[in-house]
Amino acid sequence: MSLLYKSDPQRGQRWQQLFAEQAAEIAFHQWPERQHGDDIRYLVAWELPDNLLQRFPKLEVLFAVSAGVDQLNMAAVPAHIPVVRMLDPGISRGMVEYACFAVMSLHRDMLRYRQQQQQGVWQSHPLVPASRRRIGVMGLGQQGQNVLNALQPFGFPLSAWSRRPHQLAGVTCYAGEEQLGEFLAQSDILICLLPLTPATEGILNQSLFDQLPRGAALINMGRGGHLQEADLLAALNSGQLSAAVLDVLQQEPASADHPFWQHPQILLTPHIAAATQPDSAFEVLLANIRRYERGEPMLGVVDREEGY
Amino acid sequence: MSLLYKSDPQRGQRWQQLFAEQAAEIAFHQWPERQHGDDIRYLVAWELPDNLLQRFPKLEVLFAVSAGVDQLNMAAVPAHIPVVRMLDPGISRGMVEYACFAVMSLHRDMLRYRQQQQQGVWQSHPLVPASRRRIGVMGLGQQGQNVLNALQPFGFPLSAWSRRPHQLAGVTCYAGEEQLGEFLAQSDILICLLPLTPATEGILNQSLFDQLPRGAALINMGRGGHLQEADLLAALNSGQLSAAVLDVLQQEPASADHPFWQHPQILLTPHIAAATQPDSAFEVLLANIRRYERGEPMLGVVDREEGY
Repeated sequence: MSLLYKSDPQRGQRWQQLFAEQAAEIAFHQWPERQHGDDIRYLVAWELPDNLLQRFPKLEVLFAVSAGVDQLNMAAVPAHIPVVRMLDPGISRGMVEYACFAVMSLHRDMLRYRQQQQQGVWQSHPLVPASRRRIGVMGLGQQGQNVLNALQPFGFPLSAWSRRPHQLAGVTCYAGEEQLGEFLAQSDILICLLPLTPATEGILNQSLFDQLPRGAALINMGRGGHLQEADLLAALNSGQLSAAVLDVLQQEPASADHPFWQHPQILLTPHIAAATQPDSAFEVLLANIRRYERGEPMLGVVDREEGY
Repeated sequence: MSLLYKSDPQRGQRWQQLFAEQAAEIAFHQWPERQHGDDIRYLVAWELPDNLLQRFPKLEVLFAVSAGVDQLNMAAVPAHIPVVRMLDPGISRGMVEYACFAVMSLHRDMLRYRQQQQQGVWQSHPLVPASRRRIGVMGLGQQGQNVLNALQPFGFPLSAWSRRPHQLAGVTCYAGEEQLGEFLAQSDILICLLPLTPATEGILNQSLFDQLPRGAALINMGRGGHLQEADLLAALNSGQLSAAVLDVLQQEPASADHPFWQHPQILLTPHIAAATQPDSAFEVLLANIRRYERGEPMLGVVDREEGY
């Protein structure tokens, strides 16, 4: 039985070693050395090759190497092949760290102080207590819940918005289109942790920004496709938004002349909030393969209708 | 009975109101409107006026508005007058927020990404798991303990160094001169939260930096007097240190030509980690005055020998 890996080669090298040590009965192959074969039953990939089933006619399971699967062309995957997201605890830890960095950067005015450092200006600004800085998280999947848990000890009033109703201790939960406005109206710092689906594409736009309190700030840790970039520039320009921390963009990598690079109210990082950690992700992958082989349900199977 | 306040006028205005509401029997006066008087029994100050006892011959207690009291000229305060530090929970919350910001900034390579943003470069760098980033805190007073508690959930190996032995759950504790080297050798991120005393002045110097692991990073949230600034520049230059987050400097405000402003490996903020919060600090102050009037011990009385 064979597995084909098609993603970052460095991680692939580590996984080759781990499979050899812990699951030698699974033959580990790497793209592009292997590009087809009727022995391949598992494909582990960031993006799909073309002509998927002509290349791998006996493919049984498609494992994503990422938590989000919007980059996979689902239309090319027949319905009988389950698609499994990567629920790596290493990704979760990265998301929590980045969210804390981004929240503290905005809460403590660090984009302003960054600019003052460039200009050599020593001037302090009033400090808003955490108890008066309301944080709203969009998306209550694994990442949203972890981020809210991590922010809890700091004393921020926390709320969350998701498609379906949730309950979470210490968090005011809003759900559905009809409660979105109410949720936004009380979010001083808005964090996007939604999956990217047709329903959420471009959701961070002028109409949404206009429903936030004046001077609110945005953190986008979802996908670049969530954000209407021109609308963000307009909202920063008008003062409706005060600042944004962005880890993702519509086009990655960003070109050197993208207007966000030099914007004093934008902190931009190159999609580094979280990375699949080879060792912990291998454990998650192998455990799912074992479940599949025993006929048990795998963890993280994507709902093809909802796209996550 | 009268109290004289000599510090930030905005906070003074708020305290005037709070005293009127909650302790009307204490007459609240503000410097510089009042500069002497034998009715003044309590002085609440950031810095002392000259000729302290000639101005206020019946002074009984000196309350600092800050957690550190190094800026007060203790030699001018007779031994029979207790000096009380400000143990404001608002200060603690600010220190915790700043420490989390600074630790995440260094842990997640944000000084490098700040520079890449300036240059329009989209490039990611390997992510080190928190479990392999060892954090060492110098100083185990209220702030040091709070910061360690706040960092605990992220999974960093934590250690602390203090003058006298302490025990703290989940933290490897080192004490005294003889264990300083061992503590430093395992601190990838070093956080200074010491009080400034003759024993700690200039402690962040070349000899200390040389005992850290190569490429370690420094956070100074103590006082500017802890850091030998030229030694930091040399250590960054040689690669012995990789980065520093500084909230305090030898001379504050820093002049516009201070070399730290434009240094890509230094994140500099204008002494904003924490600020005494008028409302919570008022409660702490009034509770101490009540204790004093009942003949009970006050909280935060400074040991004049040790200087904190």
